[in-house]
Amino acid sequence: MNMNELKQILQKFKQGKLTDNQVQEAFEKLSMEDLEFAKIDHSRKNRQGFPEVIFCSGKTDAQIITIAKKIVKRNHQLLATRANRKIYNKLKKEIPHVKYNELAKIIYLPNKKINKKYDNQLLIITAGTSDISVAEEARISAEVMGFKAQKIYDVGVSGIHRLFKYKEEIESAKVIIVVAGMEGALPSVVGGLVSVPVIAVPTSVGYGTSFNGITALLSMLNSCANGITVVNIDNGYGAAFAACRILSTKLK
Amino acid sequence: MNMNELKQILQKFKQGKLTDNQVQEAFEKLSMEDLEFAKIDHSRKNRQGFPEVIFCSGKTDAQIITIAKKIVKRNHQLLATRANRKIYNKLKKEIPHVKYNELAKIIYLPNKKINKKYDNQLLIITAGTSDISVAEEARISAEVMGFKAQKIYDVGVSGIHRLFKYKEEIESAKVIIVVAGMEGALPSVVGGLVSVPVIAVPTSVGYGTSFNGITALLSMLNSCANGITVVNIDNGYGAAFAACRILSTKLK
Amino acid sequence: MNMNELKQILQKFKQGKLTDNQVQEAFEKLSMEDLEFAKIDHSRKNRQGFPEVIFCSGKTDAQIITIAKKIVKRNHQLLATRANRKIYNKLKKEIPHVKYNELAKIIYLPNKKINKKYDNQLLIITAGTSDISVAEEARISAEVMGFKAQKIYDVGVSGIHRLFKYKEEIESAKVIIVVAGMEGALPSVVGGLVSVPVIAVPTSVGYGTSFNGITALLSMLNSCANGITVVNIDNGYGAAFAACRILSTKLK
Amino acid sequence: MNMNELKQILQKFKQGKLTDNQVQEAFEKLSMEDLEFAKIDHSRKNRQGFPEVIFCSGKTDAQIITIAKKIVKRNHQLLATRANRKIYNKLKKEIPHVKYNELAKIIYLPNKKINKKYDNQLLIITAGTSDISVAEEARISAEVMGFKAQKIYDVGVSGIHRLFKYKEEIESAKVIIVVAGMEGALPSVVGGLVSVPVIAVPTSVGYGTSFNGITALLSMLNSCANGITVVNIDNGYGAAFAACRILSTKLK
Amino acid sequence: MNMNELKQILQKFKQGKLTDNQVQEAFEKLSMEDLEFAKIDHSRKNRQGFPEVIFCSGKTDAQIITIAKKIVKRNHQLLATRANRKIYNKLKKEIPHVKYNELAKIIYLPNKKINKKYDNQLLIITAGTSDISVAEEARISAEVMGFKAQKIYDVGVSGIHRLFKYKEEIESAKVIIVVAGMEGALPSVVGGLVSVPVIAVPTSVGYGTSFNGITALLSMLNSCANGITVVNIDNGYGAAFAACRILSTKLK
Amino acid sequence: MNMNELKQILQKFKQGKLTDNQVQEAFEKLSMEDLEFAKIDHSRKNRQGFPEVIFCSGKTDAQIITIAKKIVKRNHQLLATRANRKIYNKLKKEIPHVKYNELAKIIYLPNKKINKKYDNQLLIITAGTSDISVAEEARISAEVMGFKAQKIYDVGVSGIHRLFKYKEEIESAKVIIVVAGMEGALPSVVGGLVSVPVIAVPTSVGYGTSFNGITALLSMLNSCANGITVVNIDNGYGAAFAACRILSTKLK
Amino acid sequence: MNMNELKQILQKFKQGKLTDNQVQEAFEKLSMEDLEFAKIDHSRKNRQGFPEVIFCSGKTDAQIITIAKKIVKRNHQLLATRANRKIYNKLKKEIPHVKYNELAKIIYLPNKKINKKYDNQLLIITAGTSDISVAEEARISAEVMGFKAQKIYDVGVSGIHRLFKYKEEIESAKVIIVVAGMEGALPSVVGGLVSVPVIAVPTSVGYGTSFNGITALLSMLNSCANGITVVNIDNGYGAAFAACRILSTKLK
Amino acid sequence: MNMNELKQILQKFKQGKLTDNQVQEAFEKLSMEDLEFAKIDHSRKNRQGFPEVIFCSGKTDAQIITIAKKIVKRNHQLLATRANRKIYNKLKKEIPHVKYNELAKIIYLPNKKINKKYDNQLLIITAGTSDISVAEEARISAEVMGFKAQKIYDVGVSGIHRLFKYKEEIESAKVIIVVAGMEGALPSVVGGLVSVPVIAVPTSVGYGTSFNGITALLSMLNSCANGITVVNIDNGYGAAFAACRILSTKLK
Repeated sequence: MNMNELKQILQKFKQGKLTDNQVQEAFEKLSMEDLEFAKIDHSRKNRQGFPEVIFCSGKTDAQIITIAKKIVKRNHQLLATRANRKIYNKLKKEIPHVKYNELAKIIYLPNKKINKKYDNQLLIITAGTSDISVAEEARISAEVMGFKAQKIYDVGVSGIHRLFKYKEEIESAKVIIVVAGMEGALPSVVGGLVSVPVIAVPTSVGYGTSFNGITALLSMLNSCANGITVVNIDNGYGAAFAACRILSTKLK
Repeated sequence: MNMNELKQILQKFKQGKLTDNQVQEAFEKLSMEDLEFAKIDHSRKNRQGFPEVIFCSGKTDAQIITIAKKIVKRNHQLLATRANRKIYNKLKKEIPHVKYNELAKIIYLPNKKINKKYDNQLLIITAGTSDISVAEEARISAEVMGFKAQKIYDVGVSGIHRLFKYKEEIESAKVIIVVAGMEGALPSVVGGLVSVPVIAVPTSVGYGTSFNGITALLSMLNSCANGITVVNIDNGYGAAFAACRILSTKLK
Repeated sequence: MNMNELKQILQKFKQGKLTDNQVQEAFEKLSMEDLEFAKIDHSRKNRQGFPEVIFCSGKTDAQIITIAKKIVKRNHQLLATRANRKIYNKLKKEIPHVKYNELAKIIYLPNKKINKKYDNQLLIITAGTSDISVAEEARISAEVMGFKAQKIYDVGVSGIHRLFKYKEEIESAKVIIVVAGMEGALPSVVGGLVSVPVIAVPTSVGYGTSFNGITALLSMLNSCANGITVVNIDNGYGAAFAACRILSTKLK
Repeated sequence: MNMNELKQILQKFKQGKLTDNQVQEAFEKLSMEDLEFAKIDHSRKNRQGFPEVIFCSGKTDAQIITIAKKIVKRNHQLLATRANRKIYNKLKKEIPHVKYNELAKIIYLPNKKINKKYDNQLLIITAGTSDISVAEEARISAEVMGFKAQKIYDVGVSGIHRLFKYKEEIESAKVIIVVAGMEGALPSVVGGLVSVPVIAVPTSVGYGTSFNGITALLSMLNSCANGITVVNIDNGYGAAFAACRILSTKLK
Repeated sequence: MNMNELKQILQKFKQGKLTDNQVQEAFEKLSMEDLEFAKIDHSRKNRQGFPEVIFCSGKTDAQIITIAKKIVKRNHQLLATRANRKIYNKLKKEIPHVKYNELAKIIYLPNKKINKKYDNQLLIITAGTSDISVAEEARISAEVMGFKAQKIYDVGVSGIHRLFKYKEEIESAKVIIVVAGMEGALPSVVGGLVSVPVIAVPTSVGYGTSFNGITALLSMLNSCANGITVVNIDNGYGAAFAACRILSTKLK
Repeated sequence: MNMNELKQILQKFKQGKLTDNQVQEAFEKLSMEDLEFAKIDHSRKNRQGFPEVIFCSGKTDAQIITIAKKIVKRNHQLLATRANRKIYNKLKKEIPHVKYNELAKIIYLPNKKINKKYDNQLLIITAGTSDISVAEEARISAEVMGFKAQKIYDVGVSGIHRLFKYKEEIESAKVIIVVAGMEGALPSVVGGLVSVPVIAVPTSVGYGTSFNGITALLSMLNSCANGITVVNIDNGYGAAFAACRILSTKLK
Repeated sequence: MNMNELKQILQKFKQGKLTDNQVQEAFEKLSMEDLEFAKIDHSRKNRQGFPEVIFCSGKTDAQIITIAKKIVKRNHQLLATRANRKIYNKLKKEIPHVKYNELAKIIYLPNKKINKKYDNQLLIITAGTSDISVAEEARISAEVMGFKAQKIYDVGVSGIHRLFKYKEEIESAKVIIVVAGMEGALPSVVGGLVSVPVIAVPTSVGYGTSFNGITALLSMLNSCANGITVVNIDNGYGAAFAACRILSTKLK
Repeated sequence: MNMNELKQILQKFKQGKLTDNQVQEAFEKLSMEDLEFAKIDHSRKNRQGFPEVIFCSGKTDAQIITIAKKIVKRNHQLLATRANRKIYNKLKKEIPHVKYNELAKIIYLPNKKINKKYDNQLLIITAGTSDISVAEEARISAEVMGFKAQKIYDVGVSGIHRLFKYKEEIESAKVIIVVAGMEGALPSVVGGLVSVPVIAVPTSVGYGTSFNGITALLSMLNSCANGITVVNIDNGYGAAFAACRILSTKLK
């Protein structure tokens, strides 16, 4: 539920233009829109800082398009993850200014209110070249949420001098997302170098006993570096959201 | 390595009182103390914001006591996790002012520089009574690191009205640690209510298919609430460290 | 074996029109029809309250059609789960009045004896939009068995106010099926709100460590809400059957 | 929260003896009692049909005794599972009329309002002798909740004629709990014989690849008998609660 | 190595027609034929009672054809499992009298020396219709090895009266192979009825937590019926070989 | 149920000394003795060739003694596995001639009818010294069932010449039980040398990734030697029973 | 970084032709080339004895071609694993002399400096024909690194005489790579025969409980033969690299 | 079998003092000593370079003592792993000069023929202090086999500067054993720094999802550093044996 809409309703109520019941109805419609197959959570932006995001897996094209249009209608930011080009092409006909990032598999409307002072405070690092698609899911997601990230890709531990070359960038970041598959060792090294929050993202890169990312996940959960936190395998979006929760919190 | 020590060495070097080699030696001794069975990482406070913590599992009593004394000698904060009362009793004879928290299994020296303005910005919630020991490991750890936490224990989802009673405390926190065993559902609910960082800690509470916390861990990694991050099972200390990384980061 | 058929046989036997052996033969033919590749269990309706259902996975089209025709010939309800449109098209040529539900992947003959007084006593809830296909498998199955269900879809815990909006519907149901993937937390919350039977169905919705529904299953088995029972992953049909076992049991 | 207590409060409020705030306070105290280490859910009986049960694992003796006394003080039924004799002996000094069932590891106060008309409608079956402790946890729990169960123990599938001897008892039950370890096959056979609800409880009985009950659990989840539901390994209490949810639901 | 070939070589050696080295060479060539990519074990028939069988998975068409021709050239029985129709069509051009069983995915040359007195001593039972392909792999394999089997398909435990109808056939068999997927309970029931060897074959039939046959396998390994043995998932051929080891052993 | 007892009952019935009902009662009592906590399956000897065996794990001493006495009273062989010395000492007071094998953890009454002509037809081989306790469970069990076994212990594959020294014993056996822990490779080698039935028993010997016998089990299930069958981890008794099923089957 | 390049830079520096900063820049460029999506580790040859190898999985064609050209430009050996024919065809247009090995899925430039004295010191053995593709990945990789290997394929333990025929080759090797799927027993037998290093490679050959190579891997990790080491499933390249580490180490 | 003993037997045979059969007997006795419960493999030293080692787990004290005495009697080196102090005390009475290393849990006779020129060519590194017991098992084992190792303990990746301090020692080693628990990342970093063989040993150090060393093992198997090999969890002895296989191989 958008704050402006809420204020208008409350003012009308004050002015006697709306009854108790009418306020309640308006409130419910604003905060949750019932499409039978989906209850869009329009108050999510108020509660969590960002509107409902469309996770495309397992949804029909028709469902995705309907939900996207409802979100855009309320002037909420649009972010649809795990989207293929086919649904993008369909959606573009309905919402012409949507963009698509092939690598990140994201459909989105660019955020017009990027807060410059946060630029490059978020740093995204990958261990290998194959981890980039997950890193890009994080980078685009963060940008749509209003935070522009810096990136350092392919600096895994088997040639650790590559990482140290970027010591300055690493030490000046405020939040770091580290994306790694295979043995997932990079977050431990990065976590040992800095005092800021480090969010580790395991990827499904690897073969055999990498078990589609389970090994990297376990490695990160057992990091000997203190206070690293972890998200689900390939969950670049989740890491970005966690980073934005940190960046948007005003500490006393 | 303590900043003051470093500055003194560098000044002496400037004044020509120390040669190149002497500086290097002094630096190495300060940053890493070699006890053969351990290389104490004295520069960790500089890099990560907090000195090396003693994880007591798998270490002999003699090793723990030696390391603890070396840390205290340098005026670093002392924090030893997974410690039993027996080692506490031994250590007390060497360092009389150490404290012990039975529930949290922590030996520590109280932090004298608690930053008042951060009081209660960190909130620790548990789903059940049996999760409290892990929550206390987090609470004491955070306090030794300089942050006093608020606590709400036993408000799990099977009686969800208990949680909602604390809506105000939850909405005013800046970082929330949610501790839960069994099905680990509480972080999803909390994560859906707030926009600040939520760190989920699975506990080994449960039986049968709780698999000593694996179920709670998996539940948290797959949370439908966005941007929740997770630490290892029963890792209260790690959650506290992650929270302190957030609280101590100065955003622009 | 249909009760009427049984009675006729027994009467003829009483009247001396059938010998011992003839009764036994008739009985065996009625209760189990041997097609070499299948032994159709025609007495299942008597024992379990519903005739044999065709689980299409792993059966050839020819086998499915033969079994379906044998069931229809005895005037038993027809219900075939995990069926694709191709087999439906073939079957329609043999049994013209069969119906197909694409989402639920079910071929069926509509039940003409829906018991009105049970309408809406069964409630089916889903956590997300992607869980709907499993929920529909449950809903259609229950309807073919004679019970019309009510549905509330997409009210998962990350926006828990959506669930509470339907408090009235939830509190007036007699049996509730809760369908959820990812972290599978919804049944715990629902189970904590009501005193009637709650049957939890984990779905394979999710990615990475959702492990195709294992995480949701484990979460439900470890629910802190008391007395919730669970069925196999994506087993909407099984949940419906369990609900119908409850609804059709006459308590003293 | 007991209905009588609630009514008294509401009447006093009507009579003007209590202010708005006083009612709210009273309500909150009644519905949830905050012991810091526990928030006792006194309204659970209203919502779920039975008051909060004490799961003793992971709780200190002092915590258990405090909670037990609070529950008894409100005249709620007392049921504490996974309790050892030591805590029973301590509790007996505080609440002299408590009983203990060694096999079931349950401390309880006998229910004085057993509803005779439900006698023997609940049937509990075990596959082996070693499964009896879990079955007794179910039997005692159900009895404390007001339902007296019938029992048939040690009739597993390797000598299946033993089961068939009890055909009459099985066919006249209204709800059946089947308890089995090892390969967990018994619920499939029972589920194929009856039309009433069957709740399967896997036990940790077995060795090697029984994996402490996982094999039995998996077997039950994959039963070829329709509509069987399952609870956690060794969860006799949960099965009893599920059975009581069914028995206490008034169908139209 | 065929016994006749061996005798001829030894006789020639006795007659001085072959030197030591020539015998050794002949022997080696007979017992193992080196094709670089394969070392065909021609002495296997002598040692194990049946010549090398071609497991087609992971082999190229060219490799399969070369090995098949070498085997046929020595008048050994030909049996190739996990074969698709494409390789059958190719092979037929080289060895025109080969047969193919589509359901069992087996290419073979019919055994001309079926031992009549063993007819129907081997019984193959399946729990469901979907298990038939594995059962047929066993049946054809046994037949190629010289033993004609009897079959009873689709008599699983959810309608256990179907099994009992075949009590006579079951009690007169000398070796029984029981094939089952899902919860894999049928071997336990059969094993409890007879005193002859029972070989259990788990199949990958099922979904969700059937884990492609693991649940059935675990169930069979933990059978409460004594002395049941188990083979790999879907390994109909292995079960047939085990049965033939039993049938061809001459006890004193 | 003992055949003599059965005959006496039937003769009395023929002579009119027993009514229909009396025969049925006598039959039921003989075939299953109801001790409430156990239903002793006295007809098992008739069906499976050996009376019910007592698996001591999870049974109370009192239960074991009661069952043992009932079995001995009917002149059935007594065999109790997984028994400790304490229960043996108790049982000895009630049944003075019972024996105990410490290594095999078996209480038994020696079988007086060992069939000499089967001597040494059963061969038991172990890979290591630590596997002997499981092998002895098999050896004693077989002996109580009437079959004297030969043994070759500690001939694992890392020094494979040790195995080949016993080529003669191996090639003259009729049934071979191979017991191995760690990588469980021995059954594959033995299975490749002989044509008689080979039963593989994985043991929990090993550490780390031996996973208490799972590795050995998996290795045996995937043996490249054809037609090897497998039993549960450490299940020496089961292997012996399977071997006796083979040895006692009369082939045409 | 090539040693010659390094020497030229250092000489220029000595001659004053390069400043400090210029040396550092040159050094960094040589040791790591930043392509944004990849940081090519050109100093790897110096550190590890072989330049960076391209693991093609998860990389785009464009990325692979760019990296390959950069490597060839520096006269480093080119080795690209897990490559399909499509990318080979594209790459051939850019680097005409590249070769492709279909079985091994390797693109490479033949090594012109094969060290003759090491010929056949490396021996590669496979258990089956289906393991050959992994063995060839090892053989080609070793050859590109400068070591020509000898091969013995298809000598698994079910016909162990095949292995013993090659006793001489086995006993004269200096390093042995043993490749096996299914139960993975071959390395244990080989490891028991020789005193030189044995590197075991599990393959994903098998079905059912072979779990795509996990069983073979576990078997090798638990080998009763001493001092065998293991690499990831199907990791022929890794085994070759490990062998080359050994062969290229100069012992005193 | 000791080479001297072999030569004496062969000379006597040449001199006609021993018949064919007597040589064979002598040979067999020498190469394998049959103690019924163990077949001591006395020819292992010849084949594998080191005599049979006693793995104490699962062996009785009497068995260990008998085997140890047989080994010492032949002047073979004695090495008994996983031994507790109790068995050491017993053994000391029989073989007074045996030594015991408490941390490594090893009983041994010191090797008198340490080859000085190999001193410090083997380097053993641990990530943490808790990994030392496994490292010491490796160090003592190697020493008994004739190779004196150098050690660097507690230099894990969370403070990676500690590792780099020992760059010189690391770069001059010929074989490196890296021992690590938790996330097991250290071998990847070390493997990226050197070109000599690196053997990784996962330890069971950690908690929660470290799964007793499985996480470290998986991490090492998936190392992005090339050509690292791995042994079983906590298998310090196996790593030492693998290292000694390398050190004792004479390359051309």
